[in-house]
Amino acid sequence: MTETVDAAPASSPLADDDMFDPAFVDAIIEGLDEEDAAHVQELVEPLHPANIADLFELLDSDRRRRLAAALGPRLDGDVLAEMNDWVRDDLIDALAPHEVADLATQLDTDDAVAIIEDLEAEEQRAVLRAMPADDRAAIEAALSYPEESAGRLMQRELIAVPEHWTVGQIIDYLRENPELTTDFWEVFVVDPGHRPVGALKLSWILRTPRWVPVADAMQREQTLIPVDMDQEEVALRFQKYALISAAVVDSSGRLVGMITVDDVVHIIQEEAGEDITRLSGAGDGDINRPFLETVKTRQTWLIVNLGTALLASGVVSLFQDTISRLVALAVLMPIVASMGGNAGTQTMAVAVRALATNQLTQSNTIRTITRELRIAIANGFTLGVLIGLGVYIIYREPELSGVIAAAMVINNLIAGLSGILVPLTLDRLKVDPAVSSAVFVTMMTDIMGFFSFLGLATLVGLPG
Amino acid sequence: MTETVDAAPASSPLADDDMFDPAFVDAIIEGLDEEDAAHVQELVEPLHPANIADLFELLDSDRRRRLAAALGPRLDGDVLAEMNDWVRDDLIDALAPHEVADLATQLDTDDAVAIIEDLEAEEQRAVLRAMPADDRAAIEAALSYPEESAGRLMQRELIAVPEHWTVGQIIDYLRENPELTTDFWEVFVVDPGHRPVGALKLSWILRTPRWVPVADAMQREQTLIPVDMDQEEVALRFQKYALISAAVVDSSGRLVGMITVDDVVHIIQEEAGEDITRLSGAGDGDINRPFLETVKTRQTWLIVNLGTALLASGVVSLFQDTISRLVALAVLMPIVASMGGNAGTQTMAVAVRALATNQLTQSNTIRTITRELRIAIANGFTLGVLIGLGVYIIYREPELSGVIAAAMVINNLIAGLSGILVPLTLDRLKVDPAVSSAVFVTMMTDIMGFFSFLGLATLVGLPG
Repeated sequence: MTETVDAAPASSPLADDDMFDPAFVDAIIEGLDEEDAAHVQELVEPLHPANIADLFELLDSDRRRRLAAALGPRLDGDVLAEMNDWVRDDLIDALAPHEVADLATQLDTDDAVAIIEDLEAEEQRAVLRAMPADDRAAIEAALSYPEESAGRLMQRELIAVPEHWTVGQIIDYLRENPELTTDFWEVFVVDPGHRPVGALKLSWILRTPRWVPVADAMQREQTLIPVDMDQEEVALRFQKYALISAAVVDSSGRLVGMITVDDVVHIIQEEAGEDITRLSGAGDGDINRPFLETVKTRQTWLIVNLGTALLASGVVSLFQDTISRLVALAVLMPIVASMGGNAGTQTMAVAVRALATNQLTQSNTIRTITRELRIAIANGFTLGVLIGLGVYIIYREPELSGVIAAAMVINNLIAGLSGILVPLTLDRLKVDPAVSSAVFVTMMTDIMGFFSFLGLATLVGLPG
Repeated sequence: MTETVDAAPASSPLADDDMFDPAFVDAIIEGLDEEDAAHVQELVEPLHPANIADLFELLDSDRRRRLAAALGPRLDGDVLAEMNDWVRDDLIDALAPHEVADLATQLDTDDAVAIIEDLEAEEQRAVLRAMPADDRAAIEAALSYPEESAGRLMQRELIAVPEHWTVGQIIDYLRENPELTTDFWEVFVVDPGHRPVGALKLSWILRTPRWVPVADAMQREQTLIPVDMDQEEVALRFQKYALISAAVVDSSGRLVGMITVDDVVHIIQEEAGEDITRLSGAGDGDINRPFLETVKTRQTWLIVNLGTALLASGVVSLFQDTISRLVALAVLMPIVASMGGNAGTQTMAVAVRALATNQLTQSNTIRTITRELRIAIANGFTLGVLIGLGVYIIYREPELSGVIAAAMVINNLIAGLSGILVPLTLDRLKVDPAVSSAVFVTMMTDIMGFFSFLGLATLVGLPG
């Protein structure tokens, strides 16, 4: 009658910060290297599935497979569901299709789909063939929805009741059908066409007398999630309306599944976190990603940046004569370009963030652009005065310090403008601003940094 | 008997993407400018509190106050709880202490604390004095815990029952005490010293016969949150163990509050998102932050970077003689520095992310450093060959292209090393790596980019 989740028990190998004691990990590694499966099993025994998943992530690829072999059935669907995608793919590659099918069968649809969707087409078919017919049908239905959509994220296991029941009938139905899911936080009320007409939070069911009709007790307004909605959008709805679970409906409005907040929490963490690494051109930035794939992703970005660096360098080459007459220009020019890059990155990070969280919308675009330009002017002025003074102190050349101060103001304006306009434009073009903004913004600040500084210097006839 | 939450009703001013139709916002603005409070109220009437909060965020400061005046009591605690911190502070400044007290009294402790904690000390005292004694006591207790700790985040409203009850007694207790909170997802079981000994998910209570003793039905293992735990750590626990709510305990293990996942979702979003803007030196990067504070935060960072840019420029100045003999060096040197900066930023973003999510721990530090160095070597080699070839094609100078290729390899190694070691070191020193990594990493890649390229050029005696 009890369900036990061994979350960080008292005699735990986890430190206060919920991370493994390194001595414990060393003991596991020793056990694996000595092929002492019994000892490894004993060490892993008290762990929560999420901790076992973490343990796999801490090991190298070779030891991960040995740990999987040592654990046997303790490596169950719950552990796999908690595991980092890359580590899981690596492990599943080593399993036979019927073993993967057994693991997936233990899980709710959403977790089973997460495991199966990343398999190669042929392996996926083999795994699905090895599953019981009803589980297979549920997973095939989920796979028919686009990747990263609500349809992939939802579970089909949910409680739906007709409007004409009473609260007591719901309770009896739940008590009498032990095969129903236990993981639910509200009961959905549907009409004869299986369209949601309301919902009942469990706390509300518990607090309402048995004789009360469902129609009187239910909450009629609820946030319905279309089955093809992007998961990032789903996460924003959950956050905005403080949802614990939500009904998923198909295009004709029928209830087809339920999304719970624990699945959404992962997405919020991933999507917000990935924006950081995507902005830097490191893709999803997962430290468990295979080496070659990681190198490929990062190099693609670096090579694009090499192109823009060559462009910027081409701008410098236009002014070789001026530089050869005054080498101080070569010494100072990186300052203007680099400060522009920093200021542009600040504005860009703010804009990317505001777009990702739906804070920057059509209604406040003009106000936000104006705000960034005011900030750029304030920053350009301060930095221009500072660098102008500094250059005067070192070189005692009023023209040179005037030129660098003016170039700093100009490049900060360029930085502010491109920092906000590039992400906005990409967003309007339906391109993820986190992926592509940085290359355009730093290209602008590099090129314009060199051009404004060296151009002004040539214009005023430096060396004077 | 019903609770209504008007989440995006059918005849909604919200577009499919859950953002306001710009025409709707314009109508609101028009109503405010014409001081037509009745029309504004009518437009706002069907909105969910979260949407009303969004509406405030879209307006400028002056119109926000006019909207607050027009809404009157419709601007309730729920709207304030959903509002962006900066926008809320701006509004609350315009309210009298007793008005703030009235609003806070409507809310659960955690939401009330969020509103009150940011007030100036004197205003805070005035608001607290205007609150009913028991609410005041609860909020003062919460304020006694550190900022951003579990104690601030928790609500005191929860359901706790003794172990010797039956499931039926819990249901009767809930039905007979309408003043109890309705927002709970599990019932906590406590011993006579009010220490948690187990928990019962509501779905479990509903599915268990009335006569079953609580002690037999409850789940004994649960994740307890210490009251002084940092909120980021709380969020990681919720995510890792897929929690919906969790008991908060004081240092003697007594149950003092409950944290629910909807509060945690905001924190995950904020903390992960802020890492992006913090890395760029734009602080929390909120577009609603007051102008002067924003400028101050960003300028502090830019001025620190101006210092490092001057250092890098000092390195260039050591090689003025070499540059004056071969101006092509000035043209090419920004490429080496900028590519190092890009590669360093990639590694740094990955490291900051892995540290923030507890993926990078003592047990896999060496492996992760090795991995980043291998990536740096692979990238350095590819970029070195590409730039070497490119420079040879343009300048037909084998020595120059050899020098830039070698400098590229060296600076990529520096980038990889500093990209991983700087965040790791800051983390060990208990400094947030997201705040301070970038300045050190780009300083290293700038300085070493110029030094390796110009130094090697001087060493091989260029121009040849």
